[in-house]
Amino acid sequence: MEIERPKSKQPIPQNAKRVFKGILFDVYQWEQEMFDGSRTIFEKLKRLDTVVIFPVLPDGKILLLEQKQPGKEVFIGAPAGRVDKGEDILTAAKRELLEETGYIGEEFILWDARQPSSKIDYAVFTFIAKGLKKISGLKPDGGEKIVLKPVKFDEFVEISTREKVGEKETIMRFIEAKYDPKKKEELRKLFSPNY
Amino acid sequence: MEIERPKSKQPIPQNAKRVFKGILFDVYQWEQEMFDGSRTIFEKLKRLDTVVIFPVLPDGKILLLEQKQPGKEVFIGAPAGRVDKGEDILTAAKRELLEETGYIGEEFILWDARQPSSKIDYAVFTFIAKGLKKISGLKPDGGEKIVLKPVKFDEFVEISTREKVGEKETIMRFIEAKYDPKKKEELRKLFSPNY
Repeated sequence: MEIERPKSKQPIPQNAKRVFKGILFDVYQWEQEMFDGSRTIFEKLKRLDTVVIFPVLPDGKILLLEQKQPGKEVFIGAPAGRVDKGEDILTAAKRELLEETGYIGEEFILWDARQPSSKIDYAVFTFIAKGLKKISGLKPDGGEKIVLKPVKFDEFVEISTREKVGEKETIMRFIEAKYDPKKKEELRKLFSPNY
Repeated sequence: MEIERPKSKQPIPQNAKRVFKGILFDVYQWEQEMFDGSRTIFEKLKRLDTVVIFPVLPDGKILLLEQKQPGKEVFIGAPAGRVDKGEDILTAAKRELLEETGYIGEEFILWDARQPSSKIDYAVFTFIAKGLKKISGLKPDGGEKIVLKPVKFDEFVEISTREKVGEKETIMRFIEAKYDPKKKEELRKLFSPNY
């Protein structure tokens, strides 16, 4: 599976200069011609892409995580993490799923791919993983404390809308599903272990 | 009206150092103690806060904008812009409304205030402006081309969900309103010129 990276709505032009290289963020600047002919320095960031995985267990429950990170309140989320430099997107999704849950998946469905911010060159890839098998314990890094939280589909929709689990676009689809029975059934199928 | 700035879920600690000062973004880093006792450099950005204004015209239409910015596709949005350094939040909302629409408003209702990103110290304040009076033409900066687009409430809800107008949290309320008649009536009241 070759996954295409979504394009930014306001791409960093080729002549942009990297003016700062950080740990998470790099900063780019360029001279932009404005509509009135004047010129202004524009600035935009780059950061590593993110994968989000919604794992569907054989019993139909969706595997969420209760997470604690340093300096941040406990929150409920989906397995997620950064795509390392040079790493294949699907490989990153598989790695994050294994590290954060101990599961491998037979099938990874790309549900959504987009660049959520016009000021940051940064894509989020959302997968639904099926055919799950537990093969090890959790290997969270030193900056995470994780408790597995499998939930039934209806509870999953409730939690995802309430706690804003995942990327903006997919949260919106959960909200739609919460209110529109037809959309909910479509989503229930998409998240069923055998579909 | 004193507007409180919402707190970040993962605040930049006091001992953080500013390692880069950009045009839109400043970069901060600090040494963070992890749960396993190890120490890692954490990085987070700061940018100027944003105000978003939904102006309600005397005839009940909501004033949206068709905007073109350099290097970006045409998009529909609400009047919005940055809070200048040291500028009062309400003052910024009034200034942006006037610059982008030529209108002043008698009443500014703070509808929502939040920090949408845990990696950027950055608040978005969303206002509903009423008692509008046109006092001048548009004064967009050289980086904007603006066409005023007043729309009726139902169309406003449609456009705002489809085009993702405003901040994530308020878009979600538009989606809820689209599907839940009770929520839609609540929102219709909130956006009525006389309420």
